[in-house]
Amino acid sequence: MACGEFSLIDRYFNRVSSSRRDVETGIGDDCALLVVPERQTLAISTDTLVSGIHFLPNMAPADIACKALAVNISDLAAMGADPAWLTLALTLPNVDESWLAAFSDSLFEQLSYYDMQLIGGDTTKGPLAMTLGIHGFVPHGRALKRSGARPGDWIYVTGTPGDSAAGLAILQKRLQVEDKVHADWLVSRHLRPKPRILHGQALRDLASSAIDLSDGLISDLGHILKASGCGARLELDNLPLSDALKASTSMEQAQEWALAGGEDYELCFTVPEVNRGALDVAIGHLGIPWTCVGQMTVASDGLMLMQQGKPVQLELHGYDHFATI
Amino acid sequence: MACGEFSLIDRYFNRVSSSRRDVETGIGDDCALLVVPERQTLAISTDTLVSGIHFLPNMAPADIACKALAVNISDLAAMGADPAWLTLALTLPNVDESWLAAFSDSLFEQLSYYDMQLIGGDTTKGPLAMTLGIHGFVPHGRALKRSGARPGDWIYVTGTPGDSAAGLAILQKRLQVEDKVHADWLVSRHLRPKPRILHGQALRDLASSAIDLSDGLISDLGHILKASGCGARLELDNLPLSDALKASTSMEQAQEWALAGGEDYELCFTVPEVNRGALDVAIGHLGIPWTCVGQMTVASDGLMLMQQGKPVQLELHGYDHFATI
Repeated sequence: MACGEFSLIDRYFNRVSSSRRDVETGIGDDCALLVVPERQTLAISTDTLVSGIHFLPNMAPADIACKALAVNISDLAAMGADPAWLTLALTLPNVDESWLAAFSDSLFEQLSYYDMQLIGGDTTKGPLAMTLGIHGFVPHGRALKRSGARPGDWIYVTGTPGDSAAGLAILQKRLQVEDKVHADWLVSRHLRPKPRILHGQALRDLASSAIDLSDGLISDLGHILKASGCGARLELDNLPLSDALKASTSMEQAQEWALAGGEDYELCFTVPEVNRGALDVAIGHLGIPWTCVGQMTVASDGLMLMQQGKPVQLELHGYDHFATI
Repeated sequence: MACGEFSLIDRYFNRVSSSRRDVETGIGDDCALLVVPERQTLAISTDTLVSGIHFLPNMAPADIACKALAVNISDLAAMGADPAWLTLALTLPNVDESWLAAFSDSLFEQLSYYDMQLIGGDTTKGPLAMTLGIHGFVPHGRALKRSGARPGDWIYVTGTPGDSAAGLAILQKRLQVEDKVHADWLVSRHLRPKPRILHGQALRDLASSAIDLSDGLISDLGHILKASGCGARLELDNLPLSDALKASTSMEQAQEWALAGGEDYELCFTVPEVNRGALDVAIGHLGIPWTCVGQMTVASDGLMLMQQGKPVQLELHGYDHFATI
């Protein structure tokens, strides 16, 4: 049973890169045993990535590991939580040792960076896919929810949404970019998104709501609107587009990717007027731009897209696996 | 977007059958927010079930839901933990409303029975598979681990292992059973295993180690041996075989299924001599047989199979997804 399931798991995933004090028993028993620190609320999220749907079939295993972890950590960032533990359920078509080595090396490098520990998992045979379960902490009562926005609150995004969709278009040869520096950077924004963990934590007492941009700004802001019972005015002229994106495609395409491209894993959040000054202090040192892109209004307004002071209609859709069925 | 991912999840899975007090925020935000009760350790496990590998492609959705949940709850049972929360990552080839209705009805019926709450999940498009993340509590320091067995401890199993493998053989038409009552019962043991949650909890202060029987007694007891640094003597004559199993196949085949058939989701546990009396009192009222099948020895013995007082050699393997590669 040298290549059996158990030795396979042992060899690649049973390494303790960081031994967290809150992990009483990690991998190797029927369950992991964990101690949640006092006065902390546990935040849990789970996401599946399927080959050919959530990542290109030829994507490098090191990039897949980075992306899978980032997608999940981003959900913690959107709650203002601090990452702690990971479970990994990995479905593999066969035992490819070089794939496993590259994937697990990359995963443990990222886990080490975030001071996280792999506490359990499962390896099964089947079409390549993985489900990550992510666990983090947030002090009691201080989590960022989708439901706290109020009319008048200002709407912000971190970073430059749209880059990831452009990067994907380059990988799929739907977009040709002459400037290699721009092209590489856009592709890296797609392959290795950076979850905004520090922003989420800094926003705990300042933002009235938050969400991460997985499906596109319009779709994700829509979730805040629904949960908070508000409408919103989104200023297209204020969308923070990266220089690389603007130099690589038309303004219209760039805006569409920023609004509905998806997979940016930036944060969208709302801030009451009274906290706007404190916001600049709280996240100003984190080295990532943050931009006010609109304002919350009453529910009856719905989501209004504004350009040069006038409402505009755009045909845009967030990413939805079953939308075409 | 009437059939979109979000409305699909909403319709079938966003029902709160039980609203647990330890769930601050359930489905509907980036993460669930949860409060672990004081003096409780969190127990977490995750298991993936892939169609055609972990369940037959034509298995009824209600049975799949039961089995997927039982497989995961069984890991909590083996730790002596009390079930609390579930995450469900479901990968579906298409939107089949009757499948979804039957699957989710069955899932919520089971969740209600165990007083569990679905706290989050993900729905993706792809070959039918699901990854469940299960979370439960066990009082600090009282979890049953694999590593606590000592030479001289007695080895027990609950119920009658081997039934599930016979039930699978019937479903796959590898086994013909004339007696319809026996056949139905063996099939139900395969399709709807009953995790031994109450046994696990009752064993907290009595058993020195425990594991659930997912891969077969020999393979799973092997994990206890490895974690505890012991050997064991297993008495084949003492294997608790059900009347239905004995009536349906040869004694040799029945023993092989009991030892290596897998998917029984019974518990195997070890009890020091001093606790044997208390054991009968602790689990005697639970209505399931428990049987002493051997004794722990020193590591150098390995795992010895005994029949009529003599060691025997059998060619047996536990279930292993990649063992044939």
